[in-house]
Amino acid sequence: MKAAIYEGNHVIRITEGTCVQPAKDEVQIAVSYAGICGTDLHLYHGRMDHRVTFPHVMGHEMSGIVRAAGAEVSHVAAGDRVVVMPLISCGECPACRAGHEHICQRLKFIGIETPGAFQSCWTVPAKTVLKIPDSLSLKLGALIEPLAVACHDVRIGDVKKGENAVILGGGPIGTLIALVAKANGANVLVSEINPYRIELLSKLGIATVNPKERDVAEYVEELTGGAGCDVVFEVTSSSAGARLMTQLPRTRGRIVVVGIFSDPPPVDLHRFFWRELKLLGARVYEKEDFERAIVLAASGDLPLEGLISDVYPLERLQDGFRQMESGAGVMKILLDCAGHAEEGSRASV
Amino acid sequence: MKAAIYEGNHVIRITEGTCVQPAKDEVQIAVSYAGICGTDLHLYHGRMDHRVTFPHVMGHEMSGIVRAAGAEVSHVAAGDRVVVMPLISCGECPACRAGHEHICQRLKFIGIETPGAFQSCWTVPAKTVLKIPDSLSLKLGALIEPLAVACHDVRIGDVKKGENAVILGGGPIGTLIALVAKANGANVLVSEINPYRIELLSKLGIATVNPKERDVAEYVEELTGGAGCDVVFEVTSSSAGARLMTQLPRTRGRIVVVGIFSDPPPVDLHRFFWRELKLLGARVYEKEDFERAIVLAASGDLPLEGLISDVYPLERLQDGFRQMESGAGVMKILLDCAGHAEEGSRASV
Repeated sequence: MKAAIYEGNHVIRITEGTCVQPAKDEVQIAVSYAGICGTDLHLYHGRMDHRVTFPHVMGHEMSGIVRAAGAEVSHVAAGDRVVVMPLISCGECPACRAGHEHICQRLKFIGIETPGAFQSCWTVPAKTVLKIPDSLSLKLGALIEPLAVACHDVRIGDVKKGENAVILGGGPIGTLIALVAKANGANVLVSEINPYRIELLSKLGIATVNPKERDVAEYVEELTGGAGCDVVFEVTSSSAGARLMTQLPRTRGRIVVVGIFSDPPPVDLHRFFWRELKLLGARVYEKEDFERAIVLAASGDLPLEGLISDVYPLERLQDGFRQMESGAGVMKILLDCAGHAEEGSRASV
Repeated sequence: MKAAIYEGNHVIRITEGTCVQPAKDEVQIAVSYAGICGTDLHLYHGRMDHRVTFPHVMGHEMSGIVRAAGAEVSHVAAGDRVVVMPLISCGECPACRAGHEHICQRLKFIGIETPGAFQSCWTVPAKTVLKIPDSLSLKLGALIEPLAVACHDVRIGDVKKGENAVILGGGPIGTLIALVAKANGANVLVSEINPYRIELLSKLGIATVNPKERDVAEYVEELTGGAGCDVVFEVTSSSAGARLMTQLPRTRGRIVVVGIFSDPPPVDLHRFFWRELKLLGARVYEKEDFERAIVLAASGDLPLEGLISDVYPLERLQDGFRQMESGAGVMKILLDCAGHAEEGSRASV
């Protein structure tokens, strides 16, 4: 088996190794495709080294085929096509006892605190493994994890039919939120500055506004007859986003914080008072979000193929990071961990 | 009749005048007691001059007795003991059409945009007038407006029996929130630094913590077995409060923003993501909050008398402001607008 090993300090090394045998409550998976997430890029930049045990294997967005299941595993078997919900909660902390296992106070995230999916053979706790239907391709299966994030965000935001939703930031998560909100029947608008992403969003049938060209608050007010929008998703993690997010909602409108802010930005708390706004934090997903993501993706109703910019062989992970760092011309890069892709093939968008 | 006229630039002048005759949909009230609010102090400091037409009469916390009602008024009559819910909404903006009249996009606040209660004879729109029961004294009647604020805040915060609520700031509103949350069956803790207020809160049976003496986040974690509290009310309008408010709640806990922040403080949005916190803005009140405040105050179950620091004759409004500016030894000052109080009498606490 092959694995992409992160050794710290921007160094990725490809190694040949042996598969980890599954324990009685584990599953060994032949990884098919794995997506590169912004979190992996953060890891690569060394910003999360304090959470990592070296040498480390990253990766948490994936699809694969079960190679072997432990003796106590009954819900999946060898040959099943699967995805992994990469959370390990403690089951004992106050959050777990309150039923919030996905935000467990001692949560381990597979691919950060434990070895991840950037390898051809991967062994994980059985309870993190979910089957996917035959109608869902393995390529799209690798999008289930970020799609589950979007399903969770949209559920936290309680997006209803006919509502106006504005998404700040049209990267992979912002775009998936827009698609899921549309699937809920909302009118969506994505605020984005990157020309490649604007064009791609447009091809996916999503309306956009460029805050470098237009005052987004004025535009949203105009679109909503002076009311403001029903819900905003902040996915930029920027001070500009934190400033804009309070300007857009109607009285009693909602703001969902999806972006991960490293520093506390100024937030207009007066506007919260004045319009009785609600701010809702959303983190990862719960089982029901993963399940909905699988159903939505398998339905074929969402143009998910369009998000896949490139498929690289696992060996080219570092090239993927470099492409993401360049900022231009990239939405989601998949790694082919099973060797079925042609090197550097451009996916059809 | 007498009125306290604000002429701008810290100048209050007491004048003799004539009562305004009520129009067909108005009520003329002999004001009994009027409370001085922090908002009145802001007005006095000139910070809200842009909303005021000079010369101006402030005041919006009051009780009184109807002197005359316009021809079309049927719900109150001369002699009725009443309070006023001092909001005038437009009925036409998107907020009003959505049923959020109390946060109307063109809201007029009586006592800011229109003449207020710091006068012995006051004429207001009939629909702002609510009767109070005989069991409620006119002095306590003057506390209904701030108590309605607290009822609204606690309702927005959805405070339930057995929950742990922490209130940041033990001024009049923070104290009333603590009393209403207790009435809902919550365990309350008030964070306050002013020694006079700490002592008063203690006399009212409310637990306190002084952030100058103890790490409030550690203390709340200890009190809640490591979980964090269910709900926080931010009533300090300070950067320290904005910093502390995100440290205290449990996973999926709530934060109610009551304080009016003049500048956007740094807010730890990462913590919202990490614990899936909710931030809820709360502004003034709705009719049901006023009605609940009247029922609660009339029940005699809340130690409201204890909040009244002093009762001054209307003529001494400026002394009241100076006392509030001094910061020490004051919770709520009432003005006697009908001449029944002895000058400077210290209320029993």
